[in-house]
Amino acid sequence: MDATHGDYIVVKAKEQGVQVIGLTRGLDTKFHHTEKLDRGEVLIAQFTDHTSAIKIRGKATVMTKYGSVDTD
Amino acid sequence: MDATHGDYIVVKAKEQGVQVIGLTRGLDTKFHHTEKLDRGEVLIAQFTDHTSAIKIRGKATVMTKYGSVDTD
Amino acid sequence: MDATHGDYIVVKAKEQGVQVIGLTRGLDTKFHHTEKLDRGEVLIAQFTDHTSAIKIRGKATVMTKYGSVDTD
Amino acid sequence: MDATHGDYIVVKAKEQGVQVIGLTRGLDTKFHHTEKLDRGEVLIAQFTDHTSAIKIRGKATVMTKYGSVDTD
Amino acid sequence: MDATHGDYIVVKAKEQGVQVIGLTRGLDTKFHHTEKLDRGEVLIAQFTDHTSAIKIRGKATVMTKYGSVDTD
Amino acid sequence: MDATHGDYIVVKAKEQGVQVIGLTRGLDTKFHHTEKLDRGEVLIAQFTDHTSAIKIRGKATVMTKYGSVDTD
Amino acid sequence: MDATHGDYIVVKAKEQGVQVIGLTRGLDTKFHHTEKLDRGEVLIAQFTDHTSAIKIRGKATVMTKYGSVDTD
Amino acid sequence: MDATHGDYIVVKAKEQGVQVIGLTRGLDTKFHHTEKLDRGEVLIAQFTDHTSAIKIRGKATVMTKYGSVDTD
Amino acid sequence: MDATHGDYIVVKAKEQGVQVIGLTRGLDTKFHHTEKLDRGEVLIAQFTDHTSAIKIRGKATVMTKYGSVDTD
Amino acid sequence: MDATHGDYIVVKAKEQGVQVIGLTRGLDTKFHHTEKLDRGEVLIAQFTDHTSAIKIRGKATVMTKYGSVDTD
Amino acid sequence: MDATHGDYIVVKAKEQGVQVIGLTRGLDTKFHHTEKLDRGEVLIAQFTDHTSAIKIRGKATVMTKYGSVDTD
Amino acid sequence: MDATHGDYIVVKAKEQGVQVIGLTRGLDTKFHHTEKLDRGEVLIAQFTDHTSAIKIRGKATVMTKYGSVDTD
Repeated sequence: MDATHGDYIVVKAKEQGVQVIGLTRGLDTKFHHTEKLDRGEVLIAQFTDHTSAIKIRGKATVMTKYGSVDTD
Repeated sequence: MDATHGDYIVVKAKEQGVQVIGLTRGLDTKFHHTEKLDRGEVLIAQFTDHTSAIKIRGKATVMTKYGSVDTD
Repeated sequence: MDATHGDYIVVKAKEQGVQVIGLTRGLDTKFHHTEKLDRGEVLIAQFTDHTSAIKIRGKATVMTKYGSVDTD
Repeated sequence: MDATHGDYIVVKAKEQGVQVIGLTRGLDTKFHHTEKLDRGEVLIAQFTDHTSAIKIRGKATVMTKYGSVDTD
Repeated sequence: MDATHGDYIVVKAKEQGVQVIGLTRGLDTKFHHTEKLDRGEVLIAQFTDHTSAIKIRGKATVMTKYGSVDTD
Repeated sequence: MDATHGDYIVVKAKEQGVQVIGLTRGLDTKFHHTEKLDRGEVLIAQFTDHTSAIKIRGKATVMTKYGSVDTD
Repeated sequence: MDATHGDYIVVKAKEQGVQVIGLTRGLDTKFHHTEKLDRGEVLIAQFTDHTSAIKIRGKATVMTKYGSVDTD
Repeated sequence: MDATHGDYIVVKAKEQGVQVIGLTRGLDTKFHHTEKLDRGEVLIAQFTDHTSAIKIRGKATVMTKYGSVDTD
Repeated sequence: MDATHGDYIVVKAKEQGVQVIGLTRGLDTKFHHTEKLDRGEVLIAQFTDHTSAIKIRGKATVMTKYGSVDTD
Repeated sequence: MDATHGDYIVVKAKEQGVQVIGLTRGLDTKFHHTEKLDRGEVLIAQFTDHTSAIKIRGKATVMTKYGSVDTD
Repeated sequence: MDATHGDYIVVKAKEQGVQVIGLTRGLDTKFHHTEKLDRGEVLIAQFTDHTSAIKIRGKATVMTKYGSVDTD
Repeated sequence: MDATHGDYIVVKAKEQGVQVIGLTRGLDTKFHHTEKLDRGEVLIAQFTDHTSAIKIRGKATVMTKYGSVDTD
């Protein structure tokens, strides 16, 4: 399976300015992109060749293969 | 599996002007396409070699492998 | 798996002139084909090397792997 | 898996002259074959290297992996 | 998987002279074989390199992966 | 998977002289073998490189992946 | 998967002299081996490069992936 | 999968001198090994490159993927 | 499957300063990155070519394929 | 899958001197190793390139993919 | 599947100084790393090219694919 | 799948000095490593290129894919 079939998560912002931050895959682990979401917006994001971790800041619901979790 | 078997999401617009925005796969993560939906229209969109994240703006229902979520 | 095994959706038109629009896979995302359906007609359409997104306009029922959704 | 294992649909005609229309895979999407069914006849048709979409006209029941749907 | 593992259907004739017609795979879609069944006979037929669609004429029960359907 | 893993059917004869007929795979579809079963005998037969369809004549029970069906 | 993983059947003889007959894979379909079972003996036999059909004569229970069947 | 992952059966002897007989894979089908079991002993035996059929003589319980069967 | 499909865990911080520490894959096992989470933040992190163990310090909920566990 | 993923059985000795005997894979089937277990000891043993059958002598419980069986 | 998809275990320390010890894969089996956990800390650790066994010392809960077990 | 994905067992010692003994894969089957566990310690051990059988001595609980078993 190539990268187009990578696993994804779903983030729904519950307030203005929720940040979904991609962290780099590889030797260094640093922020490479921050996507800002307005209240109510939904982002569906895959793991990629460049992203091996995702951090969510601000009030949001995150859907993953283990179920949903609310940031707080 | 090649890209024609990529996972997809389903978006149903609940108002005029819902935006389904494709974000680029790769080193940069930026908007590469915005598809506008009128009220009631449905879009089914795959992840592709060019799209590794999808953002939904405006009132819509989004169906994913983790279930459905309403923007708003 | 080759393209002949690609995933498909089912569209049933509930009025005259429902449009099932194929959007191009690749760098550009634009309409490449519009199939018009008369009331009651059913279209089964795969994702292909050329189609990575499908838009439905007009009153229709759309069956996908996440369940059915009615445009409205 | 090669094409002989492609997915298929089942169509049962409920009136004379039901049309099961194969649409071409590839850059152009056009009708390449129309199979006419008499009332009560059943057609089982695979997606192939040449067919990536199938349209059904006339009163019929269509069985797919998402369940059955009646035209009309 | 090679062709010997292709999917199959089961047809049981409910009257004399039921026809199970193989339609050609490829650019042209035409009848390449008609198997006639007497009342009560059963035919199990695979999709093959040469057959991508099967049509059933006359009173019969057809068993497929989506369930059974009676021609009428 | 090679041919030794091909799918099979089970036929139980319910009278003398039941015929299990192998039809050729390939361009021509003709009888290549007829196995005669006496009442009560059971035959388990795979699809092979040479057989892509099987016809059963005479009173018998046929077990397939879609369930059992009685001729007659 | 190679032939050592081929599917198998189980035959239990319910009288003396039950015959489990291997039929040849390939262009010709003929008996290549007859294994005789005494009452109560059990034979577990795989499909192989040389056997694509198995016939059971005499009173026996045959266990297959579709369930058990008694010859009569 | 190589031969070390081959399917196996389990035989429990219910009397002295139960015989578990390996029959050869290939053109000839003959006994190549007889393992004798004392009452209560258990033998777990795989199908192998050399064994494509196994015969059990004497009172025993045989466990297979289709369930258990007692010789008699 | 390449690294973009690697398994992941989900960490939700329940206090300020939760640490999610990546330990190196390979001959040496040492800390190569520490991601700090504020109260309520969620981190989804894959195992990668560089990370074969992950340690969580501070009050958090950790979701894994075996269920959830709270640090304490 | 290589041999490290081979299937295994579990043997628990219920008396002193239980023997778990490995029989050779290949043309000859003979004992190549006897592992003696004291009462209460447990042995977990895989099928390997050298072992295609395992015999258990003495009072023991044997756990396999078809369930547990007690020698007697 | 490469090593990034290796199976993992989850260890939660229930006292200070729990040790999670990696044992070397290969001809020698010896300790190559000891990770110390404080009370309440959680470690998720994969099997790797260098670790084929893991030992847990001190009060902890260990989650595995067979369920959870408490050291004592 | 390579060896890092090999199956594993879980051993919990219920007394001092439980021994988990690795037996060599290959022509000879002999002890190559003995890991001693103190009361309450847990060992998770994979089958490897060097270990095809594992013996447990002393009071312990052993978790396997067929369930748990207590040495005695």
